[in-house]
Amino acid sequence: MEGRGVCAPRGFRAGAVSCGIKRGGALDLCLLQAEVPCAAAGTFTRNAFKAAPVVVTMEHLSREGVLQAVVANSGVANAWTGERGRGDARAMAGEVGRLLGIPAHRVAVASTGTIGNFLPMEKVLEGIRAASWRLTREGGEEAARAIMTTDSFPKLGEWDCGPFRVGGMAKGAGMIHPDMATMLAFITTDALVEPGVLSAALRAAVEKTFNRITVDGCTSTNDMVLALASGLSGYRPSPGELEEALLDACRCLSRLIVRDGEGASRLMRVRVEGARDDREAKAVAFAVAGSLLVKTALFGGDPNWGRIVQAVGAALPDAREEGTEVLVGDLLLARDGVPAPYPEDRAAEAFSREEVEVTVRLSRGEGVSEVLTCDLGYEYVRINAEYRT
Amino acid sequence: MEGRGVCAPRGFRAGAVSCGIKRGGALDLCLLQAEVPCAAAGTFTRNAFKAAPVVVTMEHLSREGVLQAVVANSGVANAWTGERGRGDARAMAGEVGRLLGIPAHRVAVASTGTIGNFLPMEKVLEGIRAASWRLTREGGEEAARAIMTTDSFPKLGEWDCGPFRVGGMAKGAGMIHPDMATMLAFITTDALVEPGVLSAALRAAVEKTFNRITVDGCTSTNDMVLALASGLSGYRPSPGELEEALLDACRCLSRLIVRDGEGASRLMRVRVEGARDDREAKAVAFAVAGSLLVKTALFGGDPNWGRIVQAVGAALPDAREEGTEVLVGDLLLARDGVPAPYPEDRAAEAFSREEVEVTVRLSRGEGVSEVLTCDLGYEYVRINAEYRT
Repeated sequence: MEGRGVCAPRGFRAGAVSCGIKRGGALDLCLLQAEVPCAAAGTFTRNAFKAAPVVVTMEHLSREGVLQAVVANSGVANAWTGERGRGDARAMAGEVGRLLGIPAHRVAVASTGTIGNFLPMEKVLEGIRAASWRLTREGGEEAARAIMTTDSFPKLGEWDCGPFRVGGMAKGAGMIHPDMATMLAFITTDALVEPGVLSAALRAAVEKTFNRITVDGCTSTNDMVLALASGLSGYRPSPGELEEALLDACRCLSRLIVRDGEGASRLMRVRVEGARDDREAKAVAFAVAGSLLVKTALFGGDPNWGRIVQAVGAALPDAREEGTEVLVGDLLLARDGVPAPYPEDRAAEAFSREEVEVTVRLSRGEGVSEVLTCDLGYEYVRINAEYRT
Repeated sequence: MEGRGVCAPRGFRAGAVSCGIKRGGALDLCLLQAEVPCAAAGTFTRNAFKAAPVVVTMEHLSREGVLQAVVANSGVANAWTGERGRGDARAMAGEVGRLLGIPAHRVAVASTGTIGNFLPMEKVLEGIRAASWRLTREGGEEAARAIMTTDSFPKLGEWDCGPFRVGGMAKGAGMIHPDMATMLAFITTDALVEPGVLSAALRAAVEKTFNRITVDGCTSTNDMVLALASGLSGYRPSPGELEEALLDACRCLSRLIVRDGEGASRLMRVRVEGARDDREAKAVAFAVAGSLLVKTALFGGDPNWGRIVQAVGAALPDAREEGTEVLVGDLLLARDGVPAPYPEDRAAEAFSREEVEVTVRLSRGEGVSEVLTCDLGYEYVRINAEYRT
């Protein structure tokens, strides 16, 4: 995957280095700098044990809604590290500010990696200094590489919205079950926009995209989506136009995260229709998408829809068999409490596609929701049984 | 595992056959008969899509609180099979009643296996007839074998309570996350007891045992625990004495289910203390025990306690780092938002035991709960990706 990513809109440059947080010389620290102070917005994990960089970035963002730089590292999450960890995150922002001539509170900090370890601050500060020399308009891809942990490919994109542009990068792979916020994702734009408008548009876009994916049902301590708007296009989009643009970017990045879910070989889009309301639809869609039995059946390419029915019935204690339908693609598998007469080979074919579309119809209202997930196979186990060793 | 199981108390006999529901000649149908009508009680799945045998057994039990026989099959769950499925379950009870001279509504029916398939009723009825010829006092073990699906060993036990006895059998392995009820488990006793007393004692025992285990977070459509009391010991235990006896039986059987969780190599007991109340403690304990990341770390023998912290923080949005502690055995791993200074080799050793004891202390109240789970490894994926094929 190539492209300019976060450097695509006017006014942004990035750079990444390997400073020794990860073993083996992989890129593990990046900087993103804007030419001018940017209107900024963020959504953050709802995990009670917010990592130090999440706490510090929330503080900084709440000051003015303005950011001009982001520093992010992989390898160590700086989570469950207490006052020392928060001091380390502040030191990272301070060093970036000093080097780039930006007030420290206009620098956002993000980390991803193992929980419960302190950052090797000497290496980190040295890395920040080295990265500050590498800031270029071509640095979007290496920045995306520097935030990878168990990701198998960097996630970046750029979107041309006519008079303005949007760019973005993200990391994902595991501990993916965003709740009001998400993984690390950074979105840039040269649209001219106030922080409040940007924030509203970002929240709306995140709710429909990053908050509708799951890899393993585990909500990270470090989730963060940041948006920075330089305004250098001189174009002021309407709130709706801005939201559409952010939605495109978030949809693409969140989809890349699921496609690269740890060990994933196949996507599944679970659509729930006819729930009492959207909230109920979302809960049912997540119950199906999060079911280990559904995810392992997906891995095996097995149209074992009984497991879908099981997940729906467990999530919705007052569900009724009458009026409940399960489809894969446009093939009806089950209806009204009985199996539908379908050709087994067509069902098997539909479950073996690269992207499997499952629809659950409940006939109890107008609520609709879609959740995107991936299968769960041997690789997920291997990666997570061996992650620290 | 050997023993008399459900035939241990006075007044019960059992028998099992292979009638061709499963391929390959494995035992797949069993009968349990009591010499006399028994006070009976049951707890059943809260999944909205209750399987036909669950619906029929609930109907039968609600008539008088009396049962005299149980017929159970494996291979096909008779779930999501509508009116035809309920008719099949009634036909099973009817045939057992006819053969044994018992009213059909005093026969319980249970099934376990794949969801969404109809039972091969000709084979099933033939199997019931064959099993009725095999009923003996020594049939407890073969009955336990006949309800196995992906179980790797039969689960049965007997408990000598002085003046009376308790016996039991269960099946488990996958789709294990009982909610108010559980897997298939059948408990017999020769205690003299009224149905209401038996029911209260069974509910209390199930809540503390079967409802505190999880293998994969998936609540089955077919869960059922039945208790039958023949009264033939002539001894009438106090309600407390009866509950203790059922608790012993349920604790042992539920533990066997987790030990034989699909592909399990290791148990983990998650104890949460200091929650606001027991309900909160239970929710947090299930969040930790159900976390895919915790379960794969357990498989790898990796003391990656950051994942435990993550699960606690995700489950409890108002948790505080101060006062929160994580221990494995008596070794403190993390406290007050920072890692504790512990020897890594001791932590690794504690996470490699056959049974790992994790304690989470929250310092916000007196609530306590314990949940038992197992690790998740390659075998779980293999079993569930290939289950139907």
